[in-house]
Amino acid sequence: MVSGQVEALVFDVFGTVVDWRGSVIQEGEKLGRAVQSEVDWPRFADAWRKEGYVDAIARIRRGEAPWASADELHRRKLDELLERFGIRGLAEDEIDRFNRVWHRLTPWPDALPGLTRLKARFVISPLSNGNFALLTNMAKRAGLPWDCIISAELTRKYKPEREVYLSAPALLGLQPAEVMMVAAHLNDLEGARAAGLGTAFVPRPLEHGPDGPRQAEPGPSIDVVAKDFVELAERLGA
Amino acid sequence: MVSGQVEALVFDVFGTVVDWRGSVIQEGEKLGRAVQSEVDWPRFADAWRKEGYVDAIARIRRGEAPWASADELHRRKLDELLERFGIRGLAEDEIDRFNRVWHRLTPWPDALPGLTRLKARFVISPLSNGNFALLTNMAKRAGLPWDCIISAELTRKYKPEREVYLSAPALLGLQPAEVMMVAAHLNDLEGARAAGLGTAFVPRPLEHGPDGPRQAEPGPSIDVVAKDFVELAERLGA
Repeated sequence: MVSGQVEALVFDVFGTVVDWRGSVIQEGEKLGRAVQSEVDWPRFADAWRKEGYVDAIARIRRGEAPWASADELHRRKLDELLERFGIRGLAEDEIDRFNRVWHRLTPWPDALPGLTRLKARFVISPLSNGNFALLTNMAKRAGLPWDCIISAELTRKYKPEREVYLSAPALLGLQPAEVMMVAAHLNDLEGARAAGLGTAFVPRPLEHGPDGPRQAEPGPSIDVVAKDFVELAERLGA
Repeated sequence: MVSGQVEALVFDVFGTVVDWRGSVIQEGEKLGRAVQSEVDWPRFADAWRKEGYVDAIARIRRGEAPWASADELHRRKLDELLERFGIRGLAEDEIDRFNRVWHRLTPWPDALPGLTRLKARFVISPLSNGNFALLTNMAKRAGLPWDCIISAELTRKYKPEREVYLSAPALLGLQPAEVMMVAAHLNDLEGARAAGLGTAFVPRPLEHGPDGPRQAEPGPSIDVVAKDFVELAERLGA
């Protein structure tokens, strides 16, 4: 455990801080009623996330596609999914607005109280593959009390590239060991640990819905495990 | 006037948001008493700012020196000034702590109430030559309610380079005309205007002390003039 020397906590956002799936489904259902389309919104949300973001980032990381922002990646897939799911008749500004549902995701219930406590003791920032504008707009709307916004966009790389993790201590004027990554995803924490950051695992068993896959168990290399951000604040003495 | 389309306000910080001179003098006086040195702290502060920051940035912009952060520039000059002003006996951690007085500057009295009002209507961010950690730490300590931190460090250039001004709309996902620069310095606003940003002038007649030089008058190219941030909020309907 390195909490004695930790000065800043940086957070994965999609899934860790906010419920992307529930938020996309909820806005999708509203949109579906407005355009009178019967759509399987959970499937739509899962495809948007997996094909449009996770897979697209993997291609960029393998050098098979040039860097593009999360907003751009989301939009490319959205155009395809509207077609695939038979959603027609949306004007350009409606499509653009729906694409930015990713700027309007709802935090998990413990996120705001937990972050507010943690902020009293630590510098807190996102460290997300979401683009800078997306993270800024999301925080403003949801009231996430970040001290600053750190996006992988600032390095034009994507997690789990080492350079992204190292950008956080570099920008904050800290050593890597003085920064702790908080995430619901073990591969993100492995990347952070490999770059010398501390690691905190907060499982989000509902990220992929009530029937989602069982989450992997954290190994002994994780510094802190907490069931939510409020428990994380307690564990870290905040 | 472009306020109808402005979505974000970006602020010069040193002099515009915070009273750097008064803050440095105040901490200097405390330090002087602790080490029993008689120092002309107003002269010390002015030399630190002018020689250590303004002149050093001009050299970097002319290509005569490699890029270095504000913290680094401040520290180089501090080492020289401690010698010049005969301040001896400080340990390394005391020098480092005093160097970071620039992270602890006090806002002008209208800054917090004005920014709080402006934040309800606009995205608000610094756009400063101060480094990212400096701006983050300053905001946390002083309670500046920024939505994000934008530092010239992110471009490794310094204002008034065009690239620095353009980084704000690029990161915020906006057009240059949707972003308004707020500054107490006309050369900063000229740089912003040349890059296509809106401009707001807030004079800070006490920036250089009660005997400081008279500030230049804003010309007709400035979009908004306000005597402080509260009046700026009124002018912009926030």
